[in-house]
Amino acid sequence: MADSKKVRFSYETLNQLCMDAFQKFGFNEEKAKIITDVLMTADLYGIQSHGMQRMVRYYKGIQKGTMKVDAEPEVVFETPVSAVIDGHDGMGQLNGHFAMKLAIEKAKKNGVGIVSVRNSNHYGIAGYYAKMAAKEGMLGFSSTNSETIMVPTYARKAMIGSNPQAWCVPADPYDFLFDASTTVVTRGKLEMYNKLGEPLPDGWALDKEGEPSNDAADVLANIAAHRGGGIMPLGGNTEALGSHKGYGNGMVAEIFASILSQGFTSNKTMKDNKSGICHGFMAINLANFGDPEAIKKHFSEYLQELRDAPKAKGQDRIYTHGEKEIEAIKDRKENGIPVIDKTMTEIQDLCNYLDLDFSKYFGDYVPPKSENMFTGNY
Amino acid sequence: MADSKKVRFSYETLNQLCMDAFQKFGFNEEKAKIITDVLMTADLYGIQSHGMQRMVRYYKGIQKGTMKVDAEPEVVFETPVSAVIDGHDGMGQLNGHFAMKLAIEKAKKNGVGIVSVRNSNHYGIAGYYAKMAAKEGMLGFSSTNSETIMVPTYARKAMIGSNPQAWCVPADPYDFLFDASTTVVTRGKLEMYNKLGEPLPDGWALDKEGEPSNDAADVLANIAAHRGGGIMPLGGNTEALGSHKGYGNGMVAEIFASILSQGFTSNKTMKDNKSGICHGFMAINLANFGDPEAIKKHFSEYLQELRDAPKAKGQDRIYTHGEKEIEAIKDRKENGIPVIDKTMTEIQDLCNYLDLDFSKYFGDYVPPKSENMFTGNY
Repeated sequence: MADSKKVRFSYETLNQLCMDAFQKFGFNEEKAKIITDVLMTADLYGIQSHGMQRMVRYYKGIQKGTMKVDAEPEVVFETPVSAVIDGHDGMGQLNGHFAMKLAIEKAKKNGVGIVSVRNSNHYGIAGYYAKMAAKEGMLGFSSTNSETIMVPTYARKAMIGSNPQAWCVPADPYDFLFDASTTVVTRGKLEMYNKLGEPLPDGWALDKEGEPSNDAADVLANIAAHRGGGIMPLGGNTEALGSHKGYGNGMVAEIFASILSQGFTSNKTMKDNKSGICHGFMAINLANFGDPEAIKKHFSEYLQELRDAPKAKGQDRIYTHGEKEIEAIKDRKENGIPVIDKTMTEIQDLCNYLDLDFSKYFGDYVPPKSENMFTGNY
Repeated sequence: MADSKKVRFSYETLNQLCMDAFQKFGFNEEKAKIITDVLMTADLYGIQSHGMQRMVRYYKGIQKGTMKVDAEPEVVFETPVSAVIDGHDGMGQLNGHFAMKLAIEKAKKNGVGIVSVRNSNHYGIAGYYAKMAAKEGMLGFSSTNSETIMVPTYARKAMIGSNPQAWCVPADPYDFLFDASTTVVTRGKLEMYNKLGEPLPDGWALDKEGEPSNDAADVLANIAAHRGGGIMPLGGNTEALGSHKGYGNGMVAEIFASILSQGFTSNKTMKDNKSGICHGFMAINLANFGDPEAIKKHFSEYLQELRDAPKAKGQDRIYTHGEKEIEAIKDRKENGIPVIDKTMTEIQDLCNYLDLDFSKYFGDYVPPKSENMFTGNY
């Protein structure tokens, strides 16, 4: 297998391409801007798997009708501190943005806003929405369910999604931003090992009998064919290392997403060309608890104490959550955003298909030829 | 070391002893009842480490002045959906019960109640308070910080407590109740291995340099002397297995407890004979999201699907969270609550000291003689 090479392009270039492509997909400028911002933020954070490279995949979803371009999120139940939204199979980013904005409005007026969304699609990074609340000086939370990938403790079949939870709280010099799947790792990591042909580390995946496996290709094939197996919850597959805790955290993500909204639980999603993915959002006004600036200062001091704590032998740095994202942003703004060259091939093909001028964005850069003879039929 | 033996006594007997002892400590009947119920619920759930055996330890705390018998929780900040409480160094159970009751009242009136408590003490099992909300048909959450025991990823010093999070949501045939420390295991597990003289499993603890250790005695001695080391976050001590995720979950528990209340963070607790422990509570009314019975039914179906999922090779059962507690209650109510015989020695000594008639509760049962020549000076 040929090595994947990465090329870097400026934030502005990729952002413009995204904006143009999503408008070609049929979204108006305002909507294209929201979707693009969620994707580009992932790229800036260094979470490439959830960045603009997903554009091609989303386009496939739109073509198949899983994602509906003309859908509008609908508030189907509401109180001063809560809402349930039917996403009507629209883009996850649009439903997510709409829902968190509503949660924030409620939290501004009434202290708290909790919004649960059903019938949505993949919404990108959970942290984007949690951060929206922190930008308004609030504690933000978001979770989502997803296609099943997590095998509950003692099961041999995936029954829960990667079900990330994101929490964001204002702090100096950077916000606390904790955004993580409740599985040990995400499917993307398995795919990376598969591409590299390397054995999976212990403690990640299960074969179709529910036994530990290091064979990425086999695990991925079993998942795709729904033969069983999948990824372990955070804490592995034994109670000794806390498997039931990762499984429990996955359930909490599920509760805010699919239970409160009475939407599809993870095990019902992605069937018959319907995603049915659900999300949860919470905005908690810090002014509910005193002077927000004092709370922020108090938290910032603790975060600094954590970073300043004595390091383990061989380590020279303790991170607090959100710090790596800040460094990634700095790097990406200075040096451009890395894109796998094969993704660039897909993008060139997409541009041709959508009648966008590839060279307008990328000058005389020539991506590798498509090995799969893409025809534009994504 | 002599083996610890367990003896079983009825719930009623131990409950009565607890009630009498806490009244002897100086609490009125109503307060003794609350404290006793939190402890006895832990015993019924099978979480002995947080049950009535702590009575002796609490008495020590009261004698030393760390726990103040006459303290009353004070609401120092309040909105229709939130409150901050100063626990004034009172019993954690009393502060916790008061705070969750307040959160539930707010959630009844205004949909949500979030209450953060500072200057408290050890409050027993986090799940007790989350369950209080579920009993009212609500989603309940509780977290607490504690004396430092969790070593953040890449550190060599414990900077965060065991910081449990508990989540409880109504379901049939039993509520979802997820109550777990955000460390891989709790200190109690290390103490158990130390007593048994067995090596710790891999992935649990760190020595004073921050390197993995299997030596329970050494780790416990280092913790006690604040020389470094401690317990790993859920996910171990490498990012490959998700250490940063357990660390992040510990921080979320900390945020609701010590950050929102502006109380002592874990690394400041338990100094100069002051506990300073903080707690967080959240009650979310399910009626915020539609018909609570329909939500409950929807959730119960998913939980049943999880229990019915195909089992891993060699396993015959998948649990959902809260199920083990239900089985433990059944066993304890039928067969009595197991108590380590050495604890019975302590209790006998305590009874003598408090002028309670040990035989009134335990008939002609004779506990082992005190090896440490207790004088009643706990």
